[in-house]
Amino acid sequence: MSEVKLVGASAINIPNMPWQEKPAGYENPIWRHNDNPVIKRNPAKGVARIFNSAVAAYEGSFIGVFRVEDNTTRPHLRMGHSVDGLDWKIDDEPIRFIDEEGNPYQPRYAYDPRLVKVEDTFYIIWCTDFYGAAIGVAKTKDFKTFISLENPFLPFNRNGVLFPRKINNTFVMLSRPSDSGHTPFGDVFLSESPDFVYWGKHRHVMTKGGQGWWQSVKIGGGPAPIETTEGWLMFYHGVTGTCNGLVYSMGAVILDINEPSKVKYRSKNFVLTPEEWYEERGFVNNVLFPCATLHDAETGRIAIYYGAADTYVGVAYTTVNEIVNYVIETHEEVGDDAGLGKI
Amino acid sequence: MSEVKLVGASAINIPNMPWQEKPAGYENPIWRHNDNPVIKRNPAKGVARIFNSAVAAYEGSFIGVFRVEDNTTRPHLRMGHSVDGLDWKIDDEPIRFIDEEGNPYQPRYAYDPRLVKVEDTFYIIWCTDFYGAAIGVAKTKDFKTFISLENPFLPFNRNGVLFPRKINNTFVMLSRPSDSGHTPFGDVFLSESPDFVYWGKHRHVMTKGGQGWWQSVKIGGGPAPIETTEGWLMFYHGVTGTCNGLVYSMGAVILDINEPSKVKYRSKNFVLTPEEWYEERGFVNNVLFPCATLHDAETGRIAIYYGAADTYVGVAYTTVNEIVNYVIETHEEVGDDAGLGKI
Repeated sequence: MSEVKLVGASAINIPNMPWQEKPAGYENPIWRHNDNPVIKRNPAKGVARIFNSAVAAYEGSFIGVFRVEDNTTRPHLRMGHSVDGLDWKIDDEPIRFIDEEGNPYQPRYAYDPRLVKVEDTFYIIWCTDFYGAAIGVAKTKDFKTFISLENPFLPFNRNGVLFPRKINNTFVMLSRPSDSGHTPFGDVFLSESPDFVYWGKHRHVMTKGGQGWWQSVKIGGGPAPIETTEGWLMFYHGVTGTCNGLVYSMGAVILDINEPSKVKYRSKNFVLTPEEWYEERGFVNNVLFPCATLHDAETGRIAIYYGAADTYVGVAYTTVNEIVNYVIETHEEVGDDAGLGKI
Repeated sequence: MSEVKLVGASAINIPNMPWQEKPAGYENPIWRHNDNPVIKRNPAKGVARIFNSAVAAYEGSFIGVFRVEDNTTRPHLRMGHSVDGLDWKIDDEPIRFIDEEGNPYQPRYAYDPRLVKVEDTFYIIWCTDFYGAAIGVAKTKDFKTFISLENPFLPFNRNGVLFPRKINNTFVMLSRPSDSGHTPFGDVFLSESPDFVYWGKHRHVMTKGGQGWWQSVKIGGGPAPIETTEGWLMFYHGVTGTCNGLVYSMGAVILDINEPSKVKYRSKNFVLTPEEWYEERGFVNNVLFPCATLHDAETGRIAIYYGAADTYVGVAYTTVNEIVNYVIETHEEVGDDAGLGKI
């Protein structure tokens, strides 16, 4: 097969993105930054932990929307800034949202943000309180004014992930319908919207399960899908259950480029699983939760930002050619993932 | 207060609808048909039970969409016909749906249908299998061709109830987000759609709870809301938990006519609760589950069709003036039901 490339919405060059070469002798398709975690405990005044957060390239440097827990342990969102994508300066105050009428609007809680640019607008998608866990969305063009939009879906739902461009002229969002608690089940669905107000044509994308056990309890979308010559590359989290609780690993899947509710390839293996101290130990042990990527079309490099143990932010690396080929080589078909997902 | 009337979408005269006067000395605002259940066990060839079903006036007589369980105990939908609304002839075959391209489409299961006319079209709303319990919808104009439409919402959801006219130029549907099982929680939400394809502007309508216990576990919409001079009258089910399982009663609420996510009045009392043998005993004991009404604007009469014990169909009566005044007189404010329901 010819070399897999970043194309379309992902054909963007970010030559100054974080990068380290794969260590000699390392076998797996994703390798960790050698000075992880890049955000440690108590990273700013009054902030206990930052994790499960999103970053983007912006005006020559890097910007992020961070899941911040202060000493109240109620999550909220803050901006952060970085020159190199590794050393982050976190704002002293939460992001202040307004509603579409311009009135102050602050979510009661906000966690696990994604940050996705579609055309000239950045969208923040997070888990919000809408009489239960639901998907909250807001938009900004300048990271100064943040406009909260209508919740796209009814509760209960988490892990809303927007595609980085319209597909067939509609916005497309992944989500993971759930219950109101710790949710012992969950598949990834997809919905489309002509206007970011009304959503429909819901499709089932992929199911928990497979022959392995690492994604046997539930799965959920991760960073925004990455457009490649083989389809949409998506990192996601897969969860297994143990006698001492859940374990979150990272998986990778390739979705059809025009009908992204169809799975083309899905690795039967996790591509990264908790094994370092900052992934195994923390506020919630054994959680590895990818939320964002940076990538460079010229080199095919990808940097994955992930939450570790609900306490830290880690970075890991791969290239589009290496990870896509790995997913193809380790593909397993699960349930009716290959179908359109419409019953 | 002046007499409460049926208006707008509910200003329809059905002089031949079922009716019995309130028995002398009976105190409560809703009274049962004296020959309940109107649909008994084994009501048609190969049919074990019919319950939780919907009826409508059609071409001078009555038509229904019934939840049918045959000896496989997998629910499906069948049409039924009646001259008087009480004696029903059930079709021998399930309703055959087609999709929007005209291809055969049959839900894997279908239960708890509602049947609502908006303008010149009848909509059937039921609980369908969409990788879990979800709201299915179909439309018909002639009860011969049934066109299955896009599922309005992601799973998991039940008790989809359509308003009988557009409000502010959009379709409006109630639903009760749930989990994938017997759901030990649940409030009623509302969503709107300009086109019956894409849905949004979701709002919380009303919460389980209140000072009484009969609706302490969960609630769910019932028949299509009825337009009155005091607002939208809606019958719903409220569920309480006991050491031997759930008990389903009927409640009544008045929603704001233009902003129906706002509760104007909500009775603190159930308005009907299982006490007759056909409500207490059956496939699922102690279930009283309203799904449809017939009403006559001239007289203000209302007939409520309800499932009893997941085994029978019962009918009960009230008048719009009596029930609306009862709800106003027994009103309690619960949570932020009176608000717009937007967080």
